[in-house]
Amino acid sequence: MDKFLDTIVAPATPAGISAISVVRVSGKEAIALVDSCFTKNVSDQPGYTIHYGYIRDGETHIDEVLISLFRAPSSYTGEDSVEISCHGSPYIVKRVLETLVKHGGRMAEPGEFTLRAFLNQKLDLAQAEAVADMIHSNSEASLQMAISQIRGGFSDDIRYLRQELIDFAALIELENDFGEEDVEFANRPKLKALVEKLLTQIEKLRSSFAAGNVLKNGINTVIAGKPNAGKSTLLNALLREERAIVSDIEGTTRDTIEEIFVLDGVQFRLIDTAGLRESTDSIEQIGVGRTKESIQKAELLIYLFDITRTSAEELKEEIAGLPQLDRTILVANKVDGAEVQSEKWPDNTVFISAKDRSIDSLIAALKDVVAHYEFGNETIINNARHADALAKSSEALQTVLSGLDSGITSDLVALDIRNALHHLGLITGEVTNDEVLDSIFGRFCIGK
Amino acid sequence: MDKFLDTIVAPATPAGISAISVVRVSGKEAIALVDSCFTKNVSDQPGYTIHYGYIRDGETHIDEVLISLFRAPSSYTGEDSVEISCHGSPYIVKRVLETLVKHGGRMAEPGEFTLRAFLNQKLDLAQAEAVADMIHSNSEASLQMAISQIRGGFSDDIRYLRQELIDFAALIELENDFGEEDVEFANRPKLKALVEKLLTQIEKLRSSFAAGNVLKNGINTVIAGKPNAGKSTLLNALLREERAIVSDIEGTTRDTIEEIFVLDGVQFRLIDTAGLRESTDSIEQIGVGRTKESIQKAELLIYLFDITRTSAEELKEEIAGLPQLDRTILVANKVDGAEVQSEKWPDNTVFISAKDRSIDSLIAALKDVVAHYEFGNETIINNARHADALAKSSEALQTVLSGLDSGITSDLVALDIRNALHHLGLITGEVTNDEVLDSIFGRFCIGK
Repeated sequence: MDKFLDTIVAPATPAGISAISVVRVSGKEAIALVDSCFTKNVSDQPGYTIHYGYIRDGETHIDEVLISLFRAPSSYTGEDSVEISCHGSPYIVKRVLETLVKHGGRMAEPGEFTLRAFLNQKLDLAQAEAVADMIHSNSEASLQMAISQIRGGFSDDIRYLRQELIDFAALIELENDFGEEDVEFANRPKLKALVEKLLTQIEKLRSSFAAGNVLKNGINTVIAGKPNAGKSTLLNALLREERAIVSDIEGTTRDTIEEIFVLDGVQFRLIDTAGLRESTDSIEQIGVGRTKESIQKAELLIYLFDITRTSAEELKEEIAGLPQLDRTILVANKVDGAEVQSEKWPDNTVFISAKDRSIDSLIAALKDVVAHYEFGNETIINNARHADALAKSSEALQTVLSGLDSGITSDLVALDIRNALHHLGLITGEVTNDEVLDSIFGRFCIGK
Repeated sequence: MDKFLDTIVAPATPAGISAISVVRVSGKEAIALVDSCFTKNVSDQPGYTIHYGYIRDGETHIDEVLISLFRAPSSYTGEDSVEISCHGSPYIVKRVLETLVKHGGRMAEPGEFTLRAFLNQKLDLAQAEAVADMIHSNSEASLQMAISQIRGGFSDDIRYLRQELIDFAALIELENDFGEEDVEFANRPKLKALVEKLLTQIEKLRSSFAAGNVLKNGINTVIAGKPNAGKSTLLNALLREERAIVSDIEGTTRDTIEEIFVLDGVQFRLIDTAGLRESTDSIEQIGVGRTKESIQKAELLIYLFDITRTSAEELKEEIAGLPQLDRTILVANKVDGAEVQSEKWPDNTVFISAKDRSIDSLIAALKDVVAHYEFGNETIINNARHADALAKSSEALQTVLSGLDSGITSDLVALDIRNALHHLGLITGEVTNDEVLDSIFGRFCIGK
């Protein structure tokens, strides 16, 4: 790829008025390029050092800056790199970039720095994806999962599985080389045992995707109920629990999300069912259109009712009209300290007074929802691409198994094993193609 | 000020998803503080070096970071400082800051880093103000002016003037010490000559404020004219000239500014005279309300008329109804290549065809407006606070002069000189008070 001979430049911090902005430069000529626009000669300076001076375009001083030098391979990209820390002004960043481009730099494409890091084997593909997850993390759970993946735990697991399989594939292919001679280098029962072990491990990883997805993306939750059941009071009470954690995070997708609250490190994303909330008629309306869809797509329904105005029979009717979700919590509101005959109500009913902020029983029920996912300490996957690759590996390994059972020829077994290896290799990038790379790195921001 | 014993922490880059974010730490304990949350021991590392590791809170890893060390006095603040370069995630920045605060840091107030730089004599007050100007610069002219002030030219001028006066003040105060003895250490004619020289220089600086203000803030410009005179066509033609320079700058104040275009490094800020533009009646409406005010506040009025539908007499009438500005350019539109009897029209009329984008004559007239300001190479002031201090210095020096002329006693002369010294000292911060500091640094962003 010729474009990797270029020295690339990009802003690495968001545009805006601030104390400092950082411009990133990477490539064979990175240090020479910056040197040609800097008031000091830094070409002989070692990596991991900082230098003070002015970025200049000929005689014109653009900005007073600090530059940080990194020398290959000890840099993020694995190439010579420079970070220019200039004043936090969009105009200055623009001028610095213009100057660098004028002197031979090229504006980087989104994700191009991390793509170079991958191509220079500073990161494998799963780790590169974890970098993106890290940047987008907005809860402790998603951050910790990304950190653990950047540190390589998941990749190591996959590579270990894959290596065991490669060893067998080599033996089987050796058999093929002997052609018509009926030799068996690869012990079939042992191979079968390995494939079964692999399948168990892959299935375990695959089944962790539900938990991983929840950690990464949160639990889509709908709060529904008749008007005056106390939905907004409840919402306020819930958000008060954890508001500080999320309210000041910018960049949160607000498209269809009304509010987010966090319990035990997991986000509950409250879906905006505008129709629902604005409905001034009764619950009959819930069954229709967009609102019904929203509920059906949700993973959790919190259904609120006013216990002072609802009989058990009426509740039963209301629930019958609702889309059926795997997880529904019925919330009896306005108990206000009065005695409640809990046996009158369905098992999944909790009793709260949103007005008084006594919502402990609901919090406990929500924690039960979180506890349902098996987070544990083991490797969790949270990436749909990985889940897909694991599914395909699993399929290929099933084919190997049934092939072994039906005694197919070793060249066919080898083919199925190669197929499984291919899909496992896609995860860490040991097997790759431009399309996969483009789709992964194209989602990164400029400068990463 | 006890609060300067604290180690302060703040984000130094704007909040947002990006490649990296930077968190700044400064104070006596800055390095120890970061050391206590970092996976490597950096307490003995020299300044201007970079170190790779993880920010951690006890056993929890928060982020993989690079930290840059600076040791007093070789840092922005003049104190020990650390810059933590973490992943560009608002959540991570929040966690890093929380961790630093938990381990003894304090969130910095706006401008507190630069205030410390000032108190540690890394910058004088005028230079500190130039840092803020630099960050807000959005044209080459305003950037270059800020850079020149950061490099100290203006401060040096002021300090030089002030030193000369201090020397005289010392001599005159010596006279006072001798009390009743009628000695004259300070040569009165020489003092008078110096004060006159000072006044000349101060007046020159003061008169540069108009130019400085234009460089910093641009020229408020109103484009007016009857409906269908071609205002929006002209606007498009003008913006096409220089659009690239400004359109991608974020953070530009858009409150009452419709568009900005730049000529010779100077911004023309087109004021949104909504009433004007939307008026479907005739020009009679211009005379009223908010619109009239906008025009009166503007520095330049571009008055457009359709030459094919306006007689010289009608134009005269239209102009008579307009607020009178020092600078008005009359623009005859829709000449479309036809011969124009320019002598029929007022002297300040230029002839264009906005539709055909032949607006060279208007551009030339605008360049004349720019040329009117004396930018030159000499020191230009652009700060209202400085203009005010210079005005007060000038006043005090006038009093010195008239005192000398009327032969007042040396103690009164000394008092007037001290008064002038006080106001000159306010500019660079050799004289200062908390109120001035608060008002200057309170306008900085957090982290600067």
